[in-house]
Amino acid sequence: MSTTNSLDVLIQALRRLPGVGVKSAQRMAFHLLQHDRQGALALSRALEEAVGSVRHCTLCHTFTEAEVCSTCLDPERDATRLCVVETPADQSALERTGAFKGLYFVLMGRLSPLDGIGPQEIGLHKLMERACNGVVQEVILATNFNAEGEATAHVISEALKSRGLHVTRLARGVPVGSELEYVDLGTIAHALVDRR
Amino acid sequence: MSTTNSLDVLIQALRRLPGVGVKSAQRMAFHLLQHDRQGALALSRALEEAVGSVRHCTLCHTFTEAEVCSTCLDPERDATRLCVVETPADQSALERTGAFKGLYFVLMGRLSPLDGIGPQEIGLHKLMERACNGVVQEVILATNFNAEGEATAHVISEALKSRGLHVTRLARGVPVGSELEYVDLGTIAHALVDRR
Repeated sequence: MSTTNSLDVLIQALRRLPGVGVKSAQRMAFHLLQHDRQGALALSRALEEAVGSVRHCTLCHTFTEAEVCSTCLDPERDATRLCVVETPADQSALERTGAFKGLYFVLMGRLSPLDGIGPQEIGLHKLMERACNGVVQEVILATNFNAEGEATAHVISEALKSRGLHVTRLARGVPVGSELEYVDLGTIAHALVDRR
Repeated sequence: MSTTNSLDVLIQALRRLPGVGVKSAQRMAFHLLQHDRQGALALSRALEEAVGSVRHCTLCHTFTEAEVCSTCLDPERDATRLCVVETPADQSALERTGAFKGLYFVLMGRLSPLDGIGPQEIGLHKLMERACNGVVQEVILATNFNAEGEATAHVISEALKSRGLHVTRLARGVPVGSELEYVDLGTIAHALVDRR
């Protein structure tokens, strides 16, 4: 659309970001070139730097710049409990609650056979090794509560139980602060079944 | 939120893109590092390249890598007609219609006093010079049909008319393919007034 080649290349490159179509990519490129060239250069450097230095923790598989991430290295944490999450963002949400002091395993995805993401891609083999190290006593499955997350939890649960490990799942129920009238029926049904 | 500094820097840099909040920035960073490191490097290079080479056409103010853009250099185009648009994307939309063979002036913005964008920032002075070069006979205002675009068109129109130039505005009316029942009342009223 434009008369400059490097602008076209930039728009195409921005389109590779998730959730960015051609209109958004154009808007981003115009904004950066017109109003925030410093920001464009900062982003360029940050991308190069992150690609060069960010890798996966050898124990929990999350993003880190070191061999092992700081959470896994923390001697204060309870190594008998291992929480399985889909992404670092999920791990961060759990951390912010302050309610869990154990260790994590980050799948960096979820089972999605249609997208070619099977047990191999989410590191099931590595998780089995990690969970069967003789120290871990309980594996808490904290994958998302949608279809793919539930399927992932089921597959992991079956695999771990066959090794005799104690496997739990985050509780399903009515969210804090909500009014029953406005809660969906599936959630209320689960909350009834799991009442305590 | 993360244990890696360069990941945090990347998330902050992505937040400078328009329309990207902290959740989207996290999702973009995770996606690039997990699934598309090639894309991340390509984006890094494209940003650097574009910031280094893209500048403004000295005649029409649009983005170009040369002194003067290819549209302004095209001898086939009708230099007596000058179309004023807000952005290169608007120019591209007009070009795709194939209905205009004149030249352009791209404001690279619109009047927005609250955001500190006045006549100076949209290059009104430069537009006046360009329109009063003795060749231009008609200036077509094709700024957007929202409050800021209309205000911009009004200010430019007043300035150009005071120099004795013929100033027109894109027609307001019912969009092609629409049913009157579903068209907003303001548009129908305009279409009635401007009937031909």
